[in-house]
Amino acid sequence: MKRYKLSLCFDGTKYHGWQVQKNAVTVQQTVQDAMGRLFGVRPALTGCSRTDAGVHARAFCAHTDIDTEIPAGRIPYALRHYLPPDISAVDCEEASGDFHARYSAKSKEYVYKIYNRPHPNPFYRGYALHIERPLDTETMNRAAKAFLGRHDFSAFRASGSGVEDTVRTVFDAGVHREGDIILFTVRADGFLYNMVRIMTGTLLEIAYGKTEPEQIPVMIARGDRSVSGPTAPAHGLYLNRVLYYSQTT
Amino acid sequence: MKRYKLSLCFDGTKYHGWQVQKNAVTVQQTVQDAMGRLFGVRPALTGCSRTDAGVHARAFCAHTDIDTEIPAGRIPYALRHYLPPDISAVDCEEASGDFHARYSAKSKEYVYKIYNRPHPNPFYRGYALHIERPLDTETMNRAAKAFLGRHDFSAFRASGSGVEDTVRTVFDAGVHREGDIILFTVRADGFLYNMVRIMTGTLLEIAYGKTEPEQIPVMIARGDRSVSGPTAPAHGLYLNRVLYYSQTT
Repeated sequence: MKRYKLSLCFDGTKYHGWQVQKNAVTVQQTVQDAMGRLFGVRPALTGCSRTDAGVHARAFCAHTDIDTEIPAGRIPYALRHYLPPDISAVDCEEASGDFHARYSAKSKEYVYKIYNRPHPNPFYRGYALHIERPLDTETMNRAAKAFLGRHDFSAFRASGSGVEDTVRTVFDAGVHREGDIILFTVRADGFLYNMVRIMTGTLLEIAYGKTEPEQIPVMIARGDRSVSGPTAPAHGLYLNRVLYYSQTT
Repeated sequence: MKRYKLSLCFDGTKYHGWQVQKNAVTVQQTVQDAMGRLFGVRPALTGCSRTDAGVHARAFCAHTDIDTEIPAGRIPYALRHYLPPDISAVDCEEASGDFHARYSAKSKEYVYKIYNRPHPNPFYRGYALHIERPLDTETMNRAAKAFLGRHDFSAFRASGSGVEDTVRTVFDAGVHREGDIILFTVRADGFLYNMVRIMTGTLLEIAYGKTEPEQIPVMIARGDRSVSGPTAPAHGLYLNRVLYYSQTT
């Protein structure tokens, strides 16, 4: 048995998130089934995070223990025949026995995409939030900087989430435009439930002039979900990358 | 009755091309139906070209004659409620009575997209051709330049196409890379059936080393479909824009 680190890219449209659930198709279950068909036994797969229903991933990390003669680098090619076209294994490497997809992660980066043109774009219909009115990315970027640092993000998690430590450290946060697409990028040591989507909804309220950028520190201090903005829809959100302690970047 | 020029963006995946056909859903029919519901009468819509089944469009132009009080600029907003999410009206303006979406076109630009990474990308699965091995875009670009100018492109049209004038003038042709995507862009006064897809297939044979770039002028001179490369699949092809005589760009 060796431990492997597997990197997955998936279109989350059809899935009820990562984690196995009863009566719902999830990414974890789909990949485990594919591995079961490839290896003969169905190994357990541990993901770097739960992602919500409909959320996408450019590089989701998972680990698994398998006994196989297939070289690590060939596993993505072999898995391809058993995976549906909306999930792709993009990398696989041997990891040390104490590597853990979730607990060895130093930080995770999410990107929220907004398609900012008057008319909808069919190519982004499931892949970016369509906002018709022109958004001022400079104001949004300035506001996003208030997320930086170590804070209690209770105001930015779904109400009704369980009791847990709500302090997280945000290492990077910024908004920039690439043509018709606006990207909100945020990297932290962890995220609370719906945290990026509530941050996005709040930045949009600021762009609309409903709230001032200076209100974000006030919201953080209040720690109350009712003072932050609405939860932006899942289909604009991407888990972009996961950085591990072993990595230099 | 006034004439309008309508610009459409569509994901061609589900459609049997532009032109109305029996027993197949086409873009023309779908937009005409939407206009019929908006205006009460179903106007005829004339497109700038027939596109093949599965081909996409970023800015497909059509003209139509309608009697309406809705200002031209509001028509895309009004149509949105009647169009499916894979077709979007992105612009509408009044045109002169002699404007014709097809015959007033000075040139059309197509783009063929190739996703060039070892493993497939779910986000491009219907939107770019996946080629695993690294492609040399410089060689492809050099080869593409041989398409420039006025030629008989008989070698680059589907065999079995009807008898017609097979001379076309190519104004621009080039291959470049944007990250993991390779784009073949070609602009001409008109295109023969499958012309861009056969050009792409030929450029790929050159990238694979099966043919030399110097063979393209030879293929053109031979004028025989059997000497050019295979027809690349439809899902990588986009009608990118249509330029009209009235336009300065």
